[in-house]
Amino acid sequence: MSKQNKEKIKVFALGGVGEIGKNMYVVDTGEEIFVMDAGLMFPQEDMLGIDIVIPDVSYLSENLDRVKGIFLTHAHEDHIGGLPYILKQVPVKVFGTRLTLGLVEAKLKEAGILGSSSLELIDSNTVAEFESAKVTFFGTNHSIPDSVGIAIHTSQGIIVNTGDFKIDHTPIDGKHTEFHKISALAEKGVLCLLSDSTNAERPGATGSEETVGKEIVEAFRNAKGRIIIASFASNVHRVQQVLDAAAKTNRKIAVSGRSMVKVVDIATQLGYLTMEKDLIIPVDSINDYREDRVAILTTGSQGESMAALSRMANGMHRQITLRQSDTVIIAATPIPGNETAVARIVDKLMRTGADVIFGQKKVHVSGHGSQEELKLMLTLMKPKYFMPVHGEYRMQKAHQKLAVQTGVAAENIFIVDKGEVIEFAGGEGRKQGKVPSGNILVDGKGVGDIGNIVLRDRKLLSQDGIMVVVVTISKATHQIISGPEIISRGFVYVRESEALLQQANELVKQVLDKCMAEKVKEWSSLKSNIRDSLAHFLFDKTRRRPMIMPIIMEI
Amino acid sequence: MSKQNKEKIKVFALGGVGEIGKNMYVVDTGEEIFVMDAGLMFPQEDMLGIDIVIPDVSYLSENLDRVKGIFLTHAHEDHIGGLPYILKQVPVKVFGTRLTLGLVEAKLKEAGILGSSSLELIDSNTVAEFESAKVTFFGTNHSIPDSVGIAIHTSQGIIVNTGDFKIDHTPIDGKHTEFHKISALAEKGVLCLLSDSTNAERPGATGSEETVGKEIVEAFRNAKGRIIIASFASNVHRVQQVLDAAAKTNRKIAVSGRSMVKVVDIATQLGYLTMEKDLIIPVDSINDYREDRVAILTTGSQGESMAALSRMANGMHRQITLRQSDTVIIAATPIPGNETAVARIVDKLMRTGADVIFGQKKVHVSGHGSQEELKLMLTLMKPKYFMPVHGEYRMQKAHQKLAVQTGVAAENIFIVDKGEVIEFAGGEGRKQGKVPSGNILVDGKGVGDIGNIVLRDRKLLSQDGIMVVVVTISKATHQIISGPEIISRGFVYVRESEALLQQANELVKQVLDKCMAEKVKEWSSLKSNIRDSLAHFLFDKTRRRPMIMPIIMEI
Repeated sequence: MSKQNKEKIKVFALGGVGEIGKNMYVVDTGEEIFVMDAGLMFPQEDMLGIDIVIPDVSYLSENLDRVKGIFLTHAHEDHIGGLPYILKQVPVKVFGTRLTLGLVEAKLKEAGILGSSSLELIDSNTVAEFESAKVTFFGTNHSIPDSVGIAIHTSQGIIVNTGDFKIDHTPIDGKHTEFHKISALAEKGVLCLLSDSTNAERPGATGSEETVGKEIVEAFRNAKGRIIIASFASNVHRVQQVLDAAAKTNRKIAVSGRSMVKVVDIATQLGYLTMEKDLIIPVDSINDYREDRVAILTTGSQGESMAALSRMANGMHRQITLRQSDTVIIAATPIPGNETAVARIVDKLMRTGADVIFGQKKVHVSGHGSQEELKLMLTLMKPKYFMPVHGEYRMQKAHQKLAVQTGVAAENIFIVDKGEVIEFAGGEGRKQGKVPSGNILVDGKGVGDIGNIVLRDRKLLSQDGIMVVVVTISKATHQIISGPEIISRGFVYVRESEALLQQANELVKQVLDKCMAEKVKEWSSLKSNIRDSLAHFLFDKTRRRPMIMPIIMEI
Repeated sequence: MSKQNKEKIKVFALGGVGEIGKNMYVVDTGEEIFVMDAGLMFPQEDMLGIDIVIPDVSYLSENLDRVKGIFLTHAHEDHIGGLPYILKQVPVKVFGTRLTLGLVEAKLKEAGILGSSSLELIDSNTVAEFESAKVTFFGTNHSIPDSVGIAIHTSQGIIVNTGDFKIDHTPIDGKHTEFHKISALAEKGVLCLLSDSTNAERPGATGSEETVGKEIVEAFRNAKGRIIIASFASNVHRVQQVLDAAAKTNRKIAVSGRSMVKVVDIATQLGYLTMEKDLIIPVDSINDYREDRVAILTTGSQGESMAALSRMANGMHRQITLRQSDTVIIAATPIPGNETAVARIVDKLMRTGADVIFGQKKVHVSGHGSQEELKLMLTLMKPKYFMPVHGEYRMQKAHQKLAVQTGVAAENIFIVDKGEVIEFAGGEGRKQGKVPSGNILVDGKGVGDIGNIVLRDRKLLSQDGIMVVVVTISKATHQIISGPEIISRGFVYVRESEALLQQANELVKQVLDKCMAEKVKEWSSLKSNIRDSLAHFLFDKTRRRPMIMPIIMEI
């Protein structure tokens, strides 16, 4: 590597910009590469059948020897969820705080790669020294404990990534945003700030998690019968407040839902949840208690169809059948895109006769800072350059406006897309080229083996189904030996459409006869003749366009 | 029909309750049947490939001789969109106000059934006399002109359906809610009120359409270049205000998007839109004007992928290419379920550099009354019985609470599901049985030929695709003559998965050989052997479950 290259520092995002999800930010000093977070994204609605989406990390795997590690800001899926896949391609050290690593360990264990992974515990006071840079941290407030911001001290100045944050002056765990460290960074000189844009469109301040606690206690007090409360499993602060509300109102609490059980276990073991030792009872013992002496903490606040709350709403939960006397509290708001699913669950819950508390009461606050908090961060950091990250384009734009308001020079603000590189030389930054980036689709065990053609086929199949036409033809005589046989799926009710299918069959016979008479030798042209005639016929009759798949068996 | 039956009056919904969409309410006096509205519903996300959903009207077609007509409240799709399909099964007279029938005519003409339909023009003063009842109307305010409520005067009292309404004290067209008629109905005695529950969860009052006009003018004043404004085509009041804003700010206006052009044409012809005669210019002449002298009124405010605004955002509009100097105004809020699509469009619009106004400004108000307006309607009507309609279950529940607050006896409030009958005898109502009801799915030309099996197949196909296995077998010798041939779609990239498909082929050969050796005679058992082995193999290798379709060609 040339000396010149070494003096250039590249900053770019492999995910998390122009989208919500799969956060991954990279600082390449020329000598060394520092990666921040390795998240996943849940598939968009047009990614049919896809389980999750991860960033394209080919830049990292191609420069593997220079990658010093993946530094995690906190343990949410959009920051750590890609690790099980990414560590296979980029087997590097993972740095994280105690709760973060606790949850990462569980994840890697499930994926069967814990043994081969190298995890390094940090806290917000850790100083990690490398050849070309030093990495330090500062504690932040977010909807999960033990979240940190990351500062990479380079030869040209400090590059800071806030991670997800809000500013909570009354945090549940008593741990405040480490303003003194932020001020010290600003004092030294922040070359470039990457900051969370999620709520950049929202005026005012987000509000403390503490406000939710009061509402939960109030709801617990008012409930006459059992309480079922759903929240994000990873929101350990919220879980703590639910436990506290139960203790205060003299209820035992049962934990239901795989991820909730997992998080409560890990967070309790690591000391992030505290409670009287017999507060939690097994789910199958709830009937041993009076209705007004139990509460059930569960998952499914986003309307996820397989989560515990959905199963209760659908009467499919093995241990819990909802009653008219129950109070169901959904202590979360729908993430954009989940509104319809949540509304459907609420409707089903209400139909059981239970009292359902959602939306209208303040049983949720966001974990992301609103405009006043974002401006405070900008004012404290005084960055020379600014990259709004962690958000869709319009959130990045809104964050840009805030930065201008707080005094960042407009020309020093970069709204980047995935892979777009900001290159710093002599303390001056500019957009300079791109690195490979994109969506890697994970479907089952397959990582990246599905692309646009497969998705397009799934889309077609989902709209009008498929019609398969098989015919056996003699290679020697060019005679039709058997068929055509027509089979369809997802197209029409076969029983009610016999006449249509019969006509389709006749049509294919005619096409075949004509082709045979014309001595068509190319099966491909025979196939396209069948496909075209049949498509035309079916569209005319039904206004549908099933996928048509002609198969010729040669004997 | 027995005398006793004649004295029983049935009221029920064939659609519109427990859902948003396909409104259709029925009053059966025993002698005669009166239908109110005939709406469609847009498919839910699990109804893959379905175009629209309409109510099951078999009760009406089975009692066709007694159906006196379909009385329309207003011309929104969820109230008239089912007509082209329903009139084929229930060919009865359709009653509607002038604008309503104007839009219905266009719809029936497109469907090719205008000639065979019988439309009867009414206004809010019409009195339609029948054997067993009299039907009258009262003018209401809604997000389309010429909307009415319907009163059916029966031997037991008056049954009122408000239709969709808000209470607008400063309506754009100067037509106020006809409070005097409502009071007169109450005076006579309202037996049962059916009222719009859409905004029953929303506190306060909705606000006048007039407030939107001011914001639109303000936005027009501030725009430096061209203006592109998207709204619901059917919101003729909003369209009027856009025309007014253009006139006030000295801009010409071009109309783009099929449904917008249609509504502007019809509403102008019928006198529901008024403007200077050369205000509207053709879309392809916009470049003849200075940027700050034109505006474009268009469709696509819900992020519909084929609408004009989407095409502009995607750079696919034939006549309009967005510029940095443009201002795009989305004068609508997303209907629940459309949030993600709208957000995507907004992002794309912003990426063009145009200024995008949406959400944050008051460029939209709802057409449905909020809690204070709903309570006013209840207080004015003083109904003995109450049925909250036009809403999902939780909205019906919220409306129920409002009714109790205004003094309706709790036991006289019926939250009904589709088809559930409220039967009145001697002025007393009770839930009594059900009539057939449900979702009829329309896909292309097919009405009701798609049901759960086809939808389940489409779902399966959309998730993991399909694998077709064909083999030709001799009937005589039980030998494999050709194949197995394996073809997949929507499953994996064939090029990257050759080894997998090769292995699958080997596996099928083994299964076939084994079956042949064991002299399996039943093709069905041979097929299920192939299906099971292959499913197991593929799931093990890929964690995917494509649909497997074995086809045996016999020769």
